[in-house]
Amino acid sequence: MRDLLMIPGPVEFEQEVLQALGAPSYGHTDPAFIAIFGRALKRLREVSLAPGAQPFVVSGSGTLAMELAVANLVEPGDSALVVNTGYFSDRMAKILERHGAKVTHVRAPPGDAPTVEEVEAQLKRGGFKVMTVTHVDTSTGVLTPVEGLSRVARELGVLSVVDGVCATAGEAFHQDAWGADVYLTASQKAVGVPPGLALLTVGPRALEAWRKRRVPVASVYSDWAEWLPIMEAYEAGKPAYFATPPVNLVCALDVSLGQILAEGLEARFARHQRLARAFRAAWRGLGLRMLPVSDAVTANTLSAVYYPEGVDASLVGRVKAEGVVVAGGLHPDLKTRYFRVGHMNRVGPSDLLTTVGAVERALLAAGYRCEPGAGLAAAEASLTAR
Amino acid sequence: MRDLLMIPGPVEFEQEVLQALGAPSYGHTDPAFIAIFGRALKRLREVSLAPGAQPFVVSGSGTLAMELAVANLVEPGDSALVVNTGYFSDRMAKILERHGAKVTHVRAPPGDAPTVEEVEAQLKRGGFKVMTVTHVDTSTGVLTPVEGLSRVARELGVLSVVDGVCATAGEAFHQDAWGADVYLTASQKAVGVPPGLALLTVGPRALEAWRKRRVPVASVYSDWAEWLPIMEAYEAGKPAYFATPPVNLVCALDVSLGQILAEGLEARFARHQRLARAFRAAWRGLGLRMLPVSDAVTANTLSAVYYPEGVDASLVGRVKAEGVVVAGGLHPDLKTRYFRVGHMNRVGPSDLLTTVGAVERALLAAGYRCEPGAGLAAAEASLTAR
Repeated sequence: MRDLLMIPGPVEFEQEVLQALGAPSYGHTDPAFIAIFGRALKRLREVSLAPGAQPFVVSGSGTLAMELAVANLVEPGDSALVVNTGYFSDRMAKILERHGAKVTHVRAPPGDAPTVEEVEAQLKRGGFKVMTVTHVDTSTGVLTPVEGLSRVARELGVLSVVDGVCATAGEAFHQDAWGADVYLTASQKAVGVPPGLALLTVGPRALEAWRKRRVPVASVYSDWAEWLPIMEAYEAGKPAYFATPPVNLVCALDVSLGQILAEGLEARFARHQRLARAFRAAWRGLGLRMLPVSDAVTANTLSAVYYPEGVDASLVGRVKAEGVVVAGGLHPDLKTRYFRVGHMNRVGPSDLLTTVGAVERALLAAGYRCEPGAGLAAAEASLTAR
Repeated sequence: MRDLLMIPGPVEFEQEVLQALGAPSYGHTDPAFIAIFGRALKRLREVSLAPGAQPFVVSGSGTLAMELAVANLVEPGDSALVVNTGYFSDRMAKILERHGAKVTHVRAPPGDAPTVEEVEAQLKRGGFKVMTVTHVDTSTGVLTPVEGLSRVARELGVLSVVDGVCATAGEAFHQDAWGADVYLTASQKAVGVPPGLALLTVGPRALEAWRKRRVPVASVYSDWAEWLPIMEAYEAGKPAYFATPPVNLVCALDVSLGQILAEGLEARFARHQRLARAFRAAWRGLGLRMLPVSDAVTANTLSAVYYPEGVDASLVGRVKAEGVVVAGGLHPDLKTRYFRVGHMNRVGPSDLLTTVGAVERALLAAGYRCEPGAGLAAAEASLTAR
């Protein structure tokens, strides 16, 4: 029997999405495909709650989405502030520096996030063109206060770039209302499509900053100048060519975004919150401690959980032997000390109970002392609480 | 009924490949996926006939593959020679220049390719670090003399980069034997996988040149330094993480490369040549003229055919009405004057007859005077010739 895939991406996908992915390809200028691509772009804008933004759908990973975001905004010598929550914030800093930015970090210890006040104080020192935030750091399960951060950057005239790779369509995000300038993400997490798409919604201030560049973007493949006419044409129902679009992935994206909007974004955010609460209750019920230091900075899309005393990273293999795939740690300082469970996209109570049950049995097999069913009971109590 | 997709990519794919693409995703560190990715890398090396080369499989389009090739080899101020056959050679020059290279072109008129002697004379002027060649230019159906070009570059100590996007696994290519340093391609043509993968096989001289760089590669996503440890680890059966690999596409790639090697490369090249000859016979039988100026520079993977007198680009729509999707022109100077038919991957006599028949009926409907069946008869005669 196939294992249940509960890592923080790729995740379990809907059957209709996989069917669209595995269908014979359309030609990229076929009127039927143009309609699908155009609709997917409109739907991406709706999912980001960014009616004024320009969507981009490009063949590549989430890391390409990061480069597509900042390579177009920074020029050599520009200053950037990185709200740093770990692995993926460090990566963003690396990309910024490669494109010539001078990077300042506002850091928090692993498991915590910088506060809006700390970031505001740093931004007020002035001179920053761009601020980057990792909405949810996939490496630690830390959620940043992205609404407040986006608002303060907007007030201070700094462009905000929000990395939503482990958040989009799972964590509440209102790009326009919060004043975030660029939201970037990838397909394989709460967006619900197998990996291979870099996705962005770019607001008008960011486009304007890009139009005022003096220096060309360092990479042709990452240059909005190549992609913007293509996205505009497809959305207007016309074909255009730069690079062959990943037609099968775009068809799958259109299906998944349609499902997301049919569920309703607020309902979807609430479902992710409800499941995340139940997972947290389960970990507590099993006597386990999470890596994020408080509920306020704990993501709803994944759990990062410390191994208890006497249990090591072999737990991940034991959980797999019980039929569920979870992930090891990723933060360089701590990676042997915790595991990660993704709970996003189509996740529901069935996946929750399957996963918590498998973790319980694996813990017992590893010699950890807990009451069989304690995690399940705590999860069930959380799910049924008023 | 679904139209037959006969454009120069994406093409018709095998059912087993589409099934692998549309299957539920593996986790990217799942031992089963590690085995699949490792095997796909080994198979890519075999398909390039490059036992000494390092394969790369990255989420992105063929244009990313072009950037992945040259961004790592050129540094600002280096000189590059572009063997220019049109649209995609111009694109390569653009990417080279973006990465700081000084570009010299050896051009041929549209429909022709520079000769080995012309290129050799230019290379002998000295100072070139890199030479780029478009194996088959998808825009014009022109085939370049890539064996001779690779050999002369090797003799003169110039790194050769061959763009095989519309050629790999369809046109004969022996990377090691011919001394080509980098072969780059994309998934959606003769490689037989829906679009979304940039593929490279990089020989030892190119890797050595990259290791000696003084200046960092301008793009993090295009930097071999990020990808090399990942490819080495997966091939060695170990997980590694940079960006989430496009797991479904990699599984589909493994299936398609397996089919290609099972057919046998020489048999596959011969099948493409046989079908291409029959297509050329059909066009001649219908009184049509091809864009390439001679058989020696005509690709086996696609046909670029001028519209006859009195017929315009609306022919493409008429062919579609007959159930076959062909493509319009792409070369900027000529694009309203010709159409393109892809014939690669699983193409066989059935696709040939379906396509030629549809083109015949569309030509007649457009008012062109030809004998119904003349193209089909010529194709059949070619297929059955000794």
